[in-house]
Amino acid sequence: MTTGNRQLRVKKWPDGLPQPDDFELVDGAVPEPGDAQVLIRNLWLSIDPYYRHSLGPRFLGTPFRHPGDVMMAVTLGQVVKSRDPRVAEGAYVTTLKGDMQDFVAVDGRDVRILPPAVFGPGGLPLSTALGVAGMPGLTAYTAMVAHARGRPGETFVVSSAGGCVGATAGQLARMMGMRAVGIAGAPEKLAWVTGKAGFDACVSYKSADFAAELAAACPRGIDVNMEHVGGAVLAAILPLMVYGGRVVLSGLIDQYNQAVAPPGPNWGVIVARSLTVTGLRVFDHMALMPEFERLMAARVLDGSLAYAEDVLEGLEQAPVSLARVLTGANFGKSLIRL
Amino acid sequence: MTTGNRQLRVKKWPDGLPQPDDFELVDGAVPEPGDAQVLIRNLWLSIDPYYRHSLGPRFLGTPFRHPGDVMMAVTLGQVVKSRDPRVAEGAYVTTLKGDMQDFVAVDGRDVRILPPAVFGPGGLPLSTALGVAGMPGLTAYTAMVAHARGRPGETFVVSSAGGCVGATAGQLARMMGMRAVGIAGAPEKLAWVTGKAGFDACVSYKSADFAAELAAACPRGIDVNMEHVGGAVLAAILPLMVYGGRVVLSGLIDQYNQAVAPPGPNWGVIVARSLTVTGLRVFDHMALMPEFERLMAARVLDGSLAYAEDVLEGLEQAPVSLARVLTGANFGKSLIRL
Repeated sequence: MTTGNRQLRVKKWPDGLPQPDDFELVDGAVPEPGDAQVLIRNLWLSIDPYYRHSLGPRFLGTPFRHPGDVMMAVTLGQVVKSRDPRVAEGAYVTTLKGDMQDFVAVDGRDVRILPPAVFGPGGLPLSTALGVAGMPGLTAYTAMVAHARGRPGETFVVSSAGGCVGATAGQLARMMGMRAVGIAGAPEKLAWVTGKAGFDACVSYKSADFAAELAAACPRGIDVNMEHVGGAVLAAILPLMVYGGRVVLSGLIDQYNQAVAPPGPNWGVIVARSLTVTGLRVFDHMALMPEFERLMAARVLDGSLAYAEDVLEGLEQAPVSLARVLTGANFGKSLIRL
Repeated sequence: MTTGNRQLRVKKWPDGLPQPDDFELVDGAVPEPGDAQVLIRNLWLSIDPYYRHSLGPRFLGTPFRHPGDVMMAVTLGQVVKSRDPRVAEGAYVTTLKGDMQDFVAVDGRDVRILPPAVFGPGGLPLSTALGVAGMPGLTAYTAMVAHARGRPGETFVVSSAGGCVGATAGQLARMMGMRAVGIAGAPEKLAWVTGKAGFDACVSYKSADFAAELAAACPRGIDVNMEHVGGAVLAAILPLMVYGGRVVLSGLIDQYNQAVAPPGPNWGVIVARSLTVTGLRVFDHMALMPEFERLMAARVLDGSLAYAEDVLEGLEQAPVSLARVLTGANFGKSLIRL
């Protein structure tokens, strides 16, 4: 077996926060690319919080890296051997399947060739293809153009504002005419977020007055929240959301190192399954009433739509009826006949 | 002061579940309609769980009925005196401002005249204008046509399936080609939901095996959930949601009698503020990459978009870097340079 491919392998699943001795560095073989594959020399590894999900039994999803496996990583590298005619040797590529090692052989269809017009001479530094101009940046862009429905003048709040996704999202929000408020921890991050990144404000979640400071930074409430943390941070954000506001859940770092889910229905499922959760207020949809009444008139009268009524007689029965609907003791629509 | 208007007034804010002695029946004055007002004789009161929010300090919103006030109710009545030329005397109307009393004077613009074509002779019974053919039914209709994005063959799950909204929603779902699964409590409700209302299945949340029974009733997962309960019911539903599923939150009865919010970020805000919460998975939006890269190339190179990188050198530093991103110790995009 040839060697020369250093690999970081999982030694055991971490208990809570991953530690260096959960991994081990071994000297593996440089793989030979198969048909339609390419051999990549990794130059950069992206390190992202969601990797935690791969390690060990979690309350969201199934672990997909086991002891002995090379640890997952999105990587950027150069193609040193190609058996896929669409991928030239020498090309710089990123791949979700690069893993934490010097060399990897992957199918040609699993690499993204970095466009020379963007990352070539005079263009962006290669490393940005894993960051501000790569998947993290695209995450921020997706939040703004596909989820947030933000409008000029609205207030945008993002947690982990010192991180690549958060910082990019806030700057895109400002580019789109919104007011950007960040949430971060370390003082140097707060200074950078409002300084170099140009956010309108940044609040520390470590402050004893965090909730009050966030409220003060958002005097007209929060129209859009891009969320990466959850827990106490999200709990402070939610009461400030305006009517009709949008929460784009991109991560919930607060939960990533917890072995069991926090109590109650778990927000984490919204991220894991890419759910859409909407609060329904019928008063916003009164324009549907005429078409709805026509449908009901037809379907109730022809017997194809069943309904039940739970009728009590007399005003004095109203409190009884209210208690019934609150405990589920009623059967059908609760009404008081006067 | 004339009398003849029996009113149910709030005596004190309930402690938990409302009790009859939280209210008192008093003989009030029959009001005189002012300019552009109508006098309505209430015939039916709708009794709905959300009325609980009006009574006493709550964790969602501000109470709007105080001791001495007539208790809120949506009502159906007949106009006995009109000073609004658009509303004829004798018309049957519903109003959100009817309250729990025999007579009410409200602005003409605050009544909805029931169309005789729907509720007149040969049409629907008047009482249905507060139920299956009124706001509760419209709530179900709104969920299905404006929120759910349901498709034929998908699985729809609704809690409080024996209630007017739930039963109507499930029947509309079936009308639209979906498979309808209800959640209810009492055995007679379960029988009615799968019998007269024609749902494909109905599961009891009171069963010791509720979660397993719900899973068995939804062998291909849940595409759409219309939710009225929250708490343990929603906690059983969420793990069954398919990728890209939709949760329409219409109520969270589980919380209505709690004086303080349950721990963690509260789902109740989604209903109260009509929020949209979306789980973002960037992998679903790779088609945006080229336009995004072009934007970044311009904005990063001209210095109008800032970024930071948190670079460690060497494969052996990857576990350290992973722990940094999970604790927020990193500053900027975390990368390992090989």
